[in-house]
Amino acid sequence: MSHSSTQLPQLLETADPMRLAILNARREGRSIGLVPTMGALHEGHLSLVQASVSKCDLTVVTIFVNPTQFGPGEDFGKYPRDLEADLAALATVSRDVLVFAPSVELMYPAGYDTRVVVGAVARPLEGRCRPGHFEGVATIVLKLFQLVPADVAFFGQKDYQQLLVIRRMVSDLNIPIRVEMCPTVRDADGLALSSRNRYLSPPQRQQALSLSRSLQLAAELVAGGQRDPQVVLRRMRELIQQAGDVRIDYVALADPDTLQPVSSMDRPVLALLAVRVGPARLIDNGMIQPP
Amino acid sequence: MSHSSTQLPQLLETADPMRLAILNARREGRSIGLVPTMGALHEGHLSLVQASVSKCDLTVVTIFVNPTQFGPGEDFGKYPRDLEADLAALATVSRDVLVFAPSVELMYPAGYDTRVVVGAVARPLEGRCRPGHFEGVATIVLKLFQLVPADVAFFGQKDYQQLLVIRRMVSDLNIPIRVEMCPTVRDADGLALSSRNRYLSPPQRQQALSLSRSLQLAAELVAGGQRDPQVVLRRMRELIQQAGDVRIDYVALADPDTLQPVSSMDRPVLALLAVRVGPARLIDNGMIQPP
Repeated sequence: MSHSSTQLPQLLETADPMRLAILNARREGRSIGLVPTMGALHEGHLSLVQASVSKCDLTVVTIFVNPTQFGPGEDFGKYPRDLEADLAALATVSRDVLVFAPSVELMYPAGYDTRVVVGAVARPLEGRCRPGHFEGVATIVLKLFQLVPADVAFFGQKDYQQLLVIRRMVSDLNIPIRVEMCPTVRDADGLALSSRNRYLSPPQRQQALSLSRSLQLAAELVAGGQRDPQVVLRRMRELIQQAGDVRIDYVALADPDTLQPVSSMDRPVLALLAVRVGPARLIDNGMIQPP
Repeated sequence: MSHSSTQLPQLLETADPMRLAILNARREGRSIGLVPTMGALHEGHLSLVQASVSKCDLTVVTIFVNPTQFGPGEDFGKYPRDLEADLAALATVSRDVLVFAPSVELMYPAGYDTRVVVGAVARPLEGRCRPGHFEGVATIVLKLFQLVPADVAFFGQKDYQQLLVIRRMVSDLNIPIRVEMCPTVRDADGLALSSRNRYLSPPQRQQALSLSRSLQLAAELVAGGQRDPQVVLRRMRELIQQAGDVRIDYVALADPDTLQPVSSMDRPVLALLAVRVGPARLIDNGMIQPP
C-alpha cells in the first residue's frame, strides 16, 4: 500500500481495519515494526519510527494517551494531545507508516476488568514513585501487541525501566515479538527529549539540565577512578540540588538487568534519576562504564 | 500434514516447532482449533477435540499440568499424568491433531515474574475457595494463546467460571481468538466427567452423584413453580448432605454472566456447586430455566 498521493500517513481508529492491514502485510511476507507512543511526538519518537522504517517493511505507530498508567494527581488531563501535528511530524519521516489512534472507549470499554502485573523489575524507582504505573503500561502494551501483531517493537532508552518491564512480560507470556531499545535523543544542551519538556518555562528548562549533567558527572567521576556508589550518588544529588527549586524523586545506581542498587562500580552500572522541575516530572538515565 | 502412517498424534514439546507448525498452517489458509487440557484425558476432553476437529482444519491439544493454578495443599503432585495414555485416547478421535506438551521449566523458566489478573468474575465461588487459582489459569491460558495462536479455543461448560474468566481476559486484552463453550459430558448416572473422579472409591462415587442430582432437583423445583432461590438452595444442600460424609464448598444460584447471586429465578439462572467427596474436590453446574 502506497500513500504517496496523500499528504499524511493513513490513520486508523478501530481494531478490525488495523488487524486486517497487519494480516494482509503478513500474507505478503512483509515484516512489521511497531512504535507505541502517547503522541505529542518529538525527535525521540521520530528516531524510533526511523529505526522501524529502516528495518521493517511496514511501520505502525500507535498514538494513545493511556489513562491507566497515570496516577491520581498526575498529568493525564493536561498531557498534550494534537493528532494533526503528530501526523504531520510522522510525514517528515515517512508517509507510508500506518497510524493507529484508538479512543479510550475502544481500549477500555464498560466492564473492562483485566490487569497484567510484572513483578520485581517493576517495583523500584518509577514503580515506587508511581504505584500502578507499570501495571497500566504492561496492560496497554500487551493489548497493542495483540491488536498490532508486529515482528519488532521499538522503545526508547529514556524509559529504561519500562523497557525492562515490557521485555520481562514479553518473555514470560511468550509473546512473539522482539523488543528493541533505541538510544535516548537529546537536545544540543543535553536535555533528554520528552513530551513533558513543553511544561517547562525557560528558567525551569535551565534547571532541567541538571539531570543530564549529573549523569555526565557520574561518568566523569567513574572515569577518574571513583568506584564508591555512595560518593557518586551524593555528588549527583548535590549537582541537582544546586540547580535551584527542584525535587528529587530518586537518583540511583543500579544493575542494568535487575535495577537493584549496586554496591560497587567495577562493572557497567545504570544511573537513573527522576526529578520534579516546576510542573514537570522528568526522568533520565545513562550507562556508566568503568574505563 | 497427514500422520496416517503413524499410530499416535504428533507430539511437540518445545515452543519453536509448535509456532512454526501454526504459521505454516496459517500460510496454507487452514483454520486452527486449540483445546487446552491438563491431560488425564476423558470423554469430556475428547468431545472438545471432536468439536475442534469438526470445525477447524488443524487441531492442537495442549497437555500441561499448570502448577500456578494449584494452591498449597491441593493435588498438583498427585494429579494424574500419563502422556502415552493421553496420546492413545486422542488417536481414537483423530491422528491428525498436534499435541503440545511443554515442560514446567519451559513454561516457567527461572526469573519468571508476570501474572494476569481478571477482576470481579474471578472473585466469587472458585475464586474464593481457591485463592490465586484463576490468576494461574488466566496466565497459562494467555501464554498458550501466544504459543498456539489459534482461531478458536474450546473449553467445557463444567469449568463454567473458568470460561467466563478466559472470555473476560480475551475480550479485555484484545486477543484474536474465539472462545467456544462445549456442553459438560456425563456418565450414564449423571456424574460429570472429571479427571479427579478417579480419586473416588466406589462408595464415594455414589456420594458424588449428589452433585448432579442436586442440579436436577433445582431444575424440577423451578419447573414446579418454585421461584425463591433460598428455598432451592436449601433443598439442594439437604440433598447433598444426605449423601453422607461430604463437605460443601459452595452451592450457588448465580447470574450466568456475572456469577453474582440472584434474588429471583424468573430468568435463566446458573446453579453451581463445589463439594469435597473423600479425596476429591468436585464441581458441577447447570442452567436452570423457568418454564
